[in-house]
Amino acid sequence: MFYHIKELQYPSKPDRPDPVYARKLQEVLGGHFGEITVAMQYLFQGLNTRGDGKYRDMLLDTATEEFAHVEMLATMIARLLDHAPVKEQEQAVAHNPVVAAVMGGMNPQHVIVSGLGAMPVDSVGNPWRADYTIASGNLLADFRDNLSKESQGRLQVVRLYEISDDRGVKDMLSFLIARDTMHQNQWLAAIAELESKEGIVVPSTFPRELEKQQVSYTFFNFSRGEESARGRWAHGPSMDGCGMFQYVAQPQPFGPKPFLNPAPPSVHDTLPIVLRNETNLPPHIG
Amino acid sequence: MFYHIKELQYPSKPDRPDPVYARKLQEVLGGHFGEITVAMQYLFQGLNTRGDGKYRDMLLDTATEEFAHVEMLATMIARLLDHAPVKEQEQAVAHNPVVAAVMGGMNPQHVIVSGLGAMPVDSVGNPWRADYTIASGNLLADFRDNLSKESQGRLQVVRLYEISDDRGVKDMLSFLIARDTMHQNQWLAAIAELESKEGIVVPSTFPRELEKQQVSYTFFNFSRGEESARGRWAHGPSMDGCGMFQYVAQPQPFGPKPFLNPAPPSVHDTLPIVLRNETNLPPHIG
Amino acid sequence: MFYHIKELQYPSKPDRPDPVYARKLQEVLGGHFGEITVAMQYLFQGLNTRGDGKYRDMLLDTATEEFAHVEMLATMIARLLDHAPVKEQEQAVAHNPVVAAVMGGMNPQHVIVSGLGAMPVDSVGNPWRADYTIASGNLLADFRDNLSKESQGRLQVVRLYEISDDRGVKDMLSFLIARDTMHQNQWLAAIAELESKEGIVVPSTFPRELEKQQVSYTFFNFSRGEESARGRWAHGPSMDGCGMFQYVAQPQPFGPKPFLNPAPPSVHDTLPIVLRNETNLPPHIG
Amino acid sequence: MFYHIKELQYPSKPDRPDPVYARKLQEVLGGHFGEITVAMQYLFQGLNTRGDGKYRDMLLDTATEEFAHVEMLATMIARLLDHAPVKEQEQAVAHNPVVAAVMGGMNPQHVIVSGLGAMPVDSVGNPWRADYTIASGNLLADFRDNLSKESQGRLQVVRLYEISDDRGVKDMLSFLIARDTMHQNQWLAAIAELESKEGIVVPSTFPRELEKQQVSYTFFNFSRGEESARGRWAHGPSMDGCGMFQYVAQPQPFGPKPFLNPAPPSVHDTLPIVLRNETNLPPHIG
Amino acid sequence: MFYHIKELQYPSKPDRPDPVYARKLQEVLGGHFGEITVAMQYLFQGLNTRGDGKYRDMLLDTATEEFAHVEMLATMIARLLDHAPVKEQEQAVAHNPVVAAVMGGMNPQHVIVSGLGAMPVDSVGNPWRADYTIASGNLLADFRDNLSKESQGRLQVVRLYEISDDRGVKDMLSFLIARDTMHQNQWLAAIAELESKEGIVVPSTFPRELEKQQVSYTFFNFSRGEESARGRWAHGPSMDGCGMFQYVAQPQPFGPKPFLNPAPPSVHDTLPIVLRNETNLPPHIG
Amino acid sequence: MFYHIKELQYPSKPDRPDPVYARKLQEVLGGHFGEITVAMQYLFQGLNTRGDGKYRDMLLDTATEEFAHVEMLATMIARLLDHAPVKEQEQAVAHNPVVAAVMGGMNPQHVIVSGLGAMPVDSVGNPWRADYTIASGNLLADFRDNLSKESQGRLQVVRLYEISDDRGVKDMLSFLIARDTMHQNQWLAAIAELESKEGIVVPSTFPRELEKQQVSYTFFNFSRGEESARGRWAHGPSMDGCGMFQYVAQPQPFGPKPFLNPAPPSVHDTLPIVLRNETNLPPHIG
Repeated sequence: MFYHIKELQYPSKPDRPDPVYARKLQEVLGGHFGEITVAMQYLFQGLNTRGDGKYRDMLLDTATEEFAHVEMLATMIARLLDHAPVKEQEQAVAHNPVVAAVMGGMNPQHVIVSGLGAMPVDSVGNPWRADYTIASGNLLADFRDNLSKESQGRLQVVRLYEISDDRGVKDMLSFLIARDTMHQNQWLAAIAELESKEGIVVPSTFPRELEKQQVSYTFFNFSRGEESARGRWAHGPSMDGCGMFQYVAQPQPFGPKPFLNPAPPSVHDTLPIVLRNETNLPPHIG
Repeated sequence: MFYHIKELQYPSKPDRPDPVYARKLQEVLGGHFGEITVAMQYLFQGLNTRGDGKYRDMLLDTATEEFAHVEMLATMIARLLDHAPVKEQEQAVAHNPVVAAVMGGMNPQHVIVSGLGAMPVDSVGNPWRADYTIASGNLLADFRDNLSKESQGRLQVVRLYEISDDRGVKDMLSFLIARDTMHQNQWLAAIAELESKEGIVVPSTFPRELEKQQVSYTFFNFSRGEESARGRWAHGPSMDGCGMFQYVAQPQPFGPKPFLNPAPPSVHDTLPIVLRNETNLPPHIG
Repeated sequence: MFYHIKELQYPSKPDRPDPVYARKLQEVLGGHFGEITVAMQYLFQGLNTRGDGKYRDMLLDTATEEFAHVEMLATMIARLLDHAPVKEQEQAVAHNPVVAAVMGGMNPQHVIVSGLGAMPVDSVGNPWRADYTIASGNLLADFRDNLSKESQGRLQVVRLYEISDDRGVKDMLSFLIARDTMHQNQWLAAIAELESKEGIVVPSTFPRELEKQQVSYTFFNFSRGEESARGRWAHGPSMDGCGMFQYVAQPQPFGPKPFLNPAPPSVHDTLPIVLRNETNLPPHIG
Repeated sequence: MFYHIKELQYPSKPDRPDPVYARKLQEVLGGHFGEITVAMQYLFQGLNTRGDGKYRDMLLDTATEEFAHVEMLATMIARLLDHAPVKEQEQAVAHNPVVAAVMGGMNPQHVIVSGLGAMPVDSVGNPWRADYTIASGNLLADFRDNLSKESQGRLQVVRLYEISDDRGVKDMLSFLIARDTMHQNQWLAAIAELESKEGIVVPSTFPRELEKQQVSYTFFNFSRGEESARGRWAHGPSMDGCGMFQYVAQPQPFGPKPFLNPAPPSVHDTLPIVLRNETNLPPHIG
Repeated sequence: MFYHIKELQYPSKPDRPDPVYARKLQEVLGGHFGEITVAMQYLFQGLNTRGDGKYRDMLLDTATEEFAHVEMLATMIARLLDHAPVKEQEQAVAHNPVVAAVMGGMNPQHVIVSGLGAMPVDSVGNPWRADYTIASGNLLADFRDNLSKESQGRLQVVRLYEISDDRGVKDMLSFLIARDTMHQNQWLAAIAELESKEGIVVPSTFPRELEKQQVSYTFFNFSRGEESARGRWAHGPSMDGCGMFQYVAQPQPFGPKPFLNPAPPSVHDTLPIVLRNETNLPPHIG
Repeated sequence: MFYHIKELQYPSKPDRPDPVYARKLQEVLGGHFGEITVAMQYLFQGLNTRGDGKYRDMLLDTATEEFAHVEMLATMIARLLDHAPVKEQEQAVAHNPVVAAVMGGMNPQHVIVSGLGAMPVDSVGNPWRADYTIASGNLLADFRDNLSKESQGRLQVVRLYEISDDRGVKDMLSFLIARDTMHQNQWLAAIAELESKEGIVVPSTFPRELEKQQVSYTFFNFSRGEESARGRWAHGPSMDGCGMFQYVAQPQPFGPKPFLNPAPPSVHDTLPIVLRNETNLPPHIG
């Protein structure tokens, strides 16, 4: 169960309105790697954790914090939308191309749909989708995804920091960047714990002898040129310590050409006789 | 530029048809963590890599291999759909509930839409979407996502292996599982290389003094109970070696209650006067 | 900012597992009218409310409660998935058609993707989408949508109650049904307050003389037959008290046939000359 | 069955082209609350009404009218796109920033995809989706959603009216605004009829004694601060006349902490032993 | 503007209910190639046709008919849902596996969401989307898509005909199949008209000398083996009569290896120095 | 199985960067009719072809080429994004409205998400979706869709050619236009082959006597006015040579008014008694 307090986790106030930037900031609120994503992802991972304990608790701690980030970003966006130019006055536009550009660069739904409020969408207007998230029941798999989300997320917030020259915006972003630093460290720490218990290949519980071990440490060079041979993945012991990396410069198929049986007539696929009746053979080939 | 050969990377033939399993196997072809996802993700990461070299080459090598896995799975699914019961014969169904169950468990689009062919969809029929993928220009961020994709992917293939009792299916899955073993090792190796050059916090190029460093290593316990204090993330040196983890058992807000300015009348939000005119105060509170 | 406690708002435990029902129950967790929808809708409405006061507070109170319902449903679904039949053992299926039917009626992603956990999807597997929600800045408009969401939501929970014969499930649903009773009453009360201040037509702030008032209270009978004349909407004073309903039995157009100008050649639409050159006139028509 | 006549329900001609406004106007054609939504929603509600009579007839009357609004908006958008600047001539842009701004503010698909025609998309380019609509079989629930759709719809059309300074556009919008006035009145009238027959809680047919009545009229204050106590929903008789509103200032959980059973090994979730083996306890906590 | 009459274009009544078939029939109502698609596609093509005349009229004629097919299918689906088993009575299921299979094969939303009504979704529950449609302003391009839609559509209806053994269903489908026969003929006739005026390559208005004519009639054999040389596309005069088909058995690239410039530091992509510093060269390669 | 070489099929280098054009060019990479669509569509059609032979080979040849076009477009877009203005420097914008317009016209995700790389999205940012594609098992149906895709595709590329004044961009587009010329010719050739073997109505294998032949060649004029009578589809022999087109100027329904049975009480639809109890009859109608 949750409780809410009205204070923000961190101040969230721009120096001045900027509706074009409001549109861009939506990316880290409602985009693929935004705050809604991590809030919902950690929430479902936590709620689905089978067995009690510190991982479940930690996931719900951080999920709960991420909802506070949703709140901060929504507040910031609403304030960036103050005084947005909503009238399309021909004169103004004709005489003031900067106003015209601002109106072109805004998300029109910030006026028409949300009435100058934040929306659960990304910077081009795609609504947030729950399949941005994963909760698989396997915590090592999920923590790796969490680390990915925090890495992409911090990268995007940093880019938004670079784009802005508003001190209020930058101050709030510097807080989110720091939290993403923590969260990358946090998932790295949790991953290290789990890897030390389970090993590094997910899932660790599948008997290794059941996989086709001949190709478990083989790098296939499917792109002409061998630059890829220069990486750590191409030689030396494998990262899981169970094998040696091999580099196959000219990979060959293990399987035959496939031939699919005809479909039954009731499916009305192209008939075998039509497929077979191939008479347009030019003289120089047949 | 690409070339195709008709042979499969690995044989892909079930012992017997099984249209219900065909539906399930779609997950690792067209689902969030399926082969289309990794093929397209590595392709775009490779094509967007600025600067030539081994990472670009390696990404395109592996992208190219993943399209061969798309081919193997599509072939397997088409074969699992051979002889699918497509007629809804009342008698058969009434007298043979297993046939009825099979028809209930199939994806009806495998008959109606694809004519017994594989589709670029997941196991419940959601079409594959390109926003399952990411190519950010920052390879460390992206390789972490690649590791996540291969971890979730191997987990799903292993679950499909457990569900099946068809030797042909299991043989092919054992190949995919082995390749996912390699690819987890591969991304771990590439990540290790990049982390050794750049450090572990993504992006490494953002000046650390610009982030709000007071909270860069702080764990906030937002969920009542302190089980989360028992993790590596709650004490000791941070994973990036730049700080010490701190555990805040009772986190407090840094920011004030927000107050948003009224919207201009032309937006037709609820008027401030309506919001302010709050007279329904019961006697015991006012 | 939010806090979490580990206790559930209400007990959430089925008498016995039932993976087919787990799939169905997803509808009110991750469907269009499920708990994620109301939680996120009230959250964004609250955060975007310009001006402080009771409406903002009330919205955030109820948003916060809805996240507790998300938690209850996720817990219930995870428990319904205990002991789900995940092996497709040919013998079992052949000899036990009920098991086969159960496997056909489950969501296969509950095994393959979530590892027996709840997912943010509906009962057919569509991921939750943020455009299920609305926060417009106009509270009367939004509260009407809230009332709609709670009406559809209670209807769906009631249908799920009827379908089930599990006492644990029914007990939890009886709690959600009661809360939806409250929430319908709550939005009706809030709507009554706002309507008494503003009037009933949204938005109330648009000057009525600017709308085409001749058709502001007219019912057009576009479907042959006049059964629709028997409704309250077809006669008597309008609900807003500003006009009289009129019934137009045979509506006629107010506008002319449209004629669109040709596109410029650089757009490569079909050329006007091709559109105009219409020579295939049969003798009996020309 | 339907018939079409070529005349428009109302004239639909702008004074001058304006491709940036064309993009914005798409919102009320193909957006969540646009004319396609109400047309399709009323159509499916009408077609699914079980039992003949005035409600079915009325729904199909109004559905049919909404398709005429689709036609008017499509025509208007096509005309606003006349003479759109489709050439990206560097000079023109460099010397005429207003042209540059116009090109930035347009929907590029209006040139590339539709060849200067209207599209079934919203103002940021999201394609219309059928899950914007609902037809539940319960008319009171559905009419409440219809009222919501007409409220949001009129709000958006009014905002678009405010933004424009084109007399032709405003004239057409004044017609749509008036029709939305009627349709809000219409659904209010129909709702009043049904509520007088059934009661106000949807669905009215579920036995009230089966719901957890202790919480059917309780407002839970989950957000610190008691501003929400000042509303009509917090005290006095409930709107359905069956109870008294109660305000719970400090809500407590009714349920215990949940504990989920471990998953079977074949699912390859994190093993219970790994979850339990929690040794990283710092000295000051254990 | 549209009018509606209550009679159906063709009778639409099954001999007996069949909720599993109702789910499947949804494909041709709300699927990619269903009746909503063609209704909306022809409607937008008609409304966007610049210039009056027979094509615009014909498009709107047929659009209007397709809405009658939407009506017929919605009616049929509602009737197939009569008496659907909505109670999950454990006994019934345990003792009657056919009932269990029926419940597994139904779309659960037909009970929970639509209350036994048709929905604008396909046979696996994906909501209809407007980007299934195209209206490009170029009628030859669009009529080819219309022909494609009617071809896939008739194929799907035929497959549904084969699956059914209900005389009422089959009778209605035989009507839809015949209309699709007409519509394939209709678009073929319209295409023939336009091709005779414009030529067959769309768009016909682009100066042929501006395209890279060396490859305008070349078939590239990118897949090892030359079976593809046996087709009409590989030799002889081209279909547009402007060139000769050529078959290139071993296609070579025309372009160089691409090299992308580094990104500016403010974007925080992987730094050039990190990409360049490639030291892991194994002895046997460097 | 696939192989990759690093050379591009055709040079892909703009004369100068242009981030606004980069956004537009995305349409033919990741839009409905872009290169990803044809690559994936031909790939799945090829892999699902039951029976070996030239059609399967030809499909895979051309699928493989289309991935080279994906590569060319991604490369071009990355280069167009070089030196994009990513800093929102107030001064620059205030003094240089063209820079402001450029920033308004860009896709902000090209900076924030992809770090100046191409994305698998269209020109307004919708992610590519696999349901843009079809592979039905019936090659004539599918080749018609392929022809449609190449027609819309060439139309869009031509429009993008018209918009640009960059010689490098236009050179690459002239190559793609030529390839689309070939591919339209190719599918026309393949269609001609199949039609000569099967006939023109898809599917050709359904017994014509089972369709309702009275309406197999009838054009229904559902839109007032008879301009549509002037087309080839309205008179003369049908295109398939099996009948004569007929023009029905005033189409009448073949079916009765539908009446749907009431739903069972457990579904909680509006009760029949409520639907029937229709007392609001005004005096002048009853």
